[in-house]
Amino acid sequence: MAHSDRITIDRITRSFASQTMMQTLGARLAGVSPGEVRIEAPILPGLRQQQGFGHAGLTFSLGDSAAGYAALSLMPPDRDVLTAEIKINLLAPAVGDLLMATGRVIKPGRRLMVVSAEVHAQQGDTLTLIAILQGTMVPVAARA
Amino acid sequence: MAHSDRITIDRITRSFASQTMMQTLGARLAGVSPGEVRIEAPILPGLRQQQGFGHAGLTFSLGDSAAGYAALSLMPPDRDVLTAEIKINLLAPAVGDLLMATGRVIKPGRRLMVVSAEVHAQQGDTLTLIAILQGTMVPVAARA
Amino acid sequence: MAHSDRITIDRITRSFASQTMMQTLGARLAGVSPGEVRIEAPILPGLRQQQGFGHAGLTFSLGDSAAGYAALSLMPPDRDVLTAEIKINLLAPAVGDLLMATGRVIKPGRRLMVVSAEVHAQQGDTLTLIAILQGTMVPVAARA
Amino acid sequence: MAHSDRITIDRITRSFASQTMMQTLGARLAGVSPGEVRIEAPILPGLRQQQGFGHAGLTFSLGDSAAGYAALSLMPPDRDVLTAEIKINLLAPAVGDLLMATGRVIKPGRRLMVVSAEVHAQQGDTLTLIAILQGTMVPVAARA
Repeated sequence: MAHSDRITIDRITRSFASQTMMQTLGARLAGVSPGEVRIEAPILPGLRQQQGFGHAGLTFSLGDSAAGYAALSLMPPDRDVLTAEIKINLLAPAVGDLLMATGRVIKPGRRLMVVSAEVHAQQGDTLTLIAILQGTMVPVAARA
Repeated sequence: MAHSDRITIDRITRSFASQTMMQTLGARLAGVSPGEVRIEAPILPGLRQQQGFGHAGLTFSLGDSAAGYAALSLMPPDRDVLTAEIKINLLAPAVGDLLMATGRVIKPGRRLMVVSAEVHAQQGDTLTLIAILQGTMVPVAARA
Repeated sequence: MAHSDRITIDRITRSFASQTMMQTLGARLAGVSPGEVRIEAPILPGLRQQQGFGHAGLTFSLGDSAAGYAALSLMPPDRDVLTAEIKINLLAPAVGDLLMATGRVIKPGRRLMVVSAEVHAQQGDTLTLIAILQGTMVPVAARA
Repeated sequence: MAHSDRITIDRITRSFASQTMMQTLGARLAGVSPGEVRIEAPILPGLRQQQGFGHAGLTFSLGDSAAGYAALSLMPPDRDVLTAEIKINLLAPAVGDLLMATGRVIKPGRRLMVVSAEVHAQQGDTLTLIAILQGTMVPVAARA
């Protein structure tokens, strides 16, 4: 592993750990490479909608965060990113043992990073694509 | 209050109470009228992003739910709604004492309900518009 | 009318006239005020989809341009704007004598302008809301 | 080629030919397979924005149509499709000899088809991704 990759992974791991939302969702950072980040989470009992499926807000949070960290993985150390906008299409109910969100950078840029994410639900051996997201991250100055 | 309005409010109150996500977010149903629903929530310590602001997933969850319940407020009792797709533009950081999401039906329909939502942050006497959402809800059969 | 308003109107009129697409669509600038712009166009025979309605691309083009010029109406003279992203929900077929797109700035900003637009179809005395748009414009340096 | 594929191609070719917008854009159907359709068009002089690039409405029209025909390619003969909503992120200016839009079905469905599209600009030997779209098509009864 290149030294710079290790720095990026450390940095994203630290940022992820500082997002209390990720802890509330039971989420963990499952993969980091330049321009692509994977986040996994179970569907906790406290994160359901009225029919007992995972709430759209859970699926969104995982997809948005995976996309945001994918963008951060390509940024210099003095920059952070914020979501400017993102759209989610929900394809299937969030049911299963685990949700897996994969975020990717489609177009890096100094002012705007265009990103996408896919969220799959794993139930036993079956993977189902449950959501796709497309959005824009904005680089901002990192807080000291 | 008309009898049918009371039934609608009861029904949305019951559905809201069954969304464990709303409890995890500390959210409460703050207003229901035909085609418009308001949800309020504090920014709990466990729902922050890396800079200490409310997570985009919190703002999204409130806006999406307000929009969904606005759609449900116009549906007959044997129908429920699911989010097909929704887009959020984040305008300002989620900071303050309270977040207030107002969902509205823009175009009702038997097959698709087009909805929007605004999310404001209240800090003392100041209200700041922090997000706007635009999306589509799909009527489905209600579960017994 | 304030001197600065006159300059803004002149500038938007010039920019609009330089968009050959607006001529192809038969569109005209129907109203300019700070943060709000209106564009009107007939549904020309050459701009239809397979069922004879106005093409989604026509409705989009009018809404996107109205939103973009609303953003430009708040920019200093050395800045132009480009669409970064925009989403359209189509509510009803584009039929009628005239399409009227009204763009508005929801949140101005130095780096990003969040905008929305509504498109109505006029048929005789009836106005029908046929589309809503929500998007982001990016200020860029104006060309000499 | 299977008989059913030939019927699909014929049907999409006929529908495409009936969209006068496609003729105005100088667009041609460049590829049809089940769930994927490609449309190509030059950047005609009458389809420019104020800086001389192709108008966002041109890029949108090609991407939206490619996505719509991708959905239609999976529908039975008595069904047509309409765009319910679609979002475009514009990544680079529309400049070059040819625009190429590729639409794909991400999730087929009886009530909703979730689709995406990419638009590339070709200039000499260089292909540039200039836009991505994500949206929803709705099956409707075909007109006789």
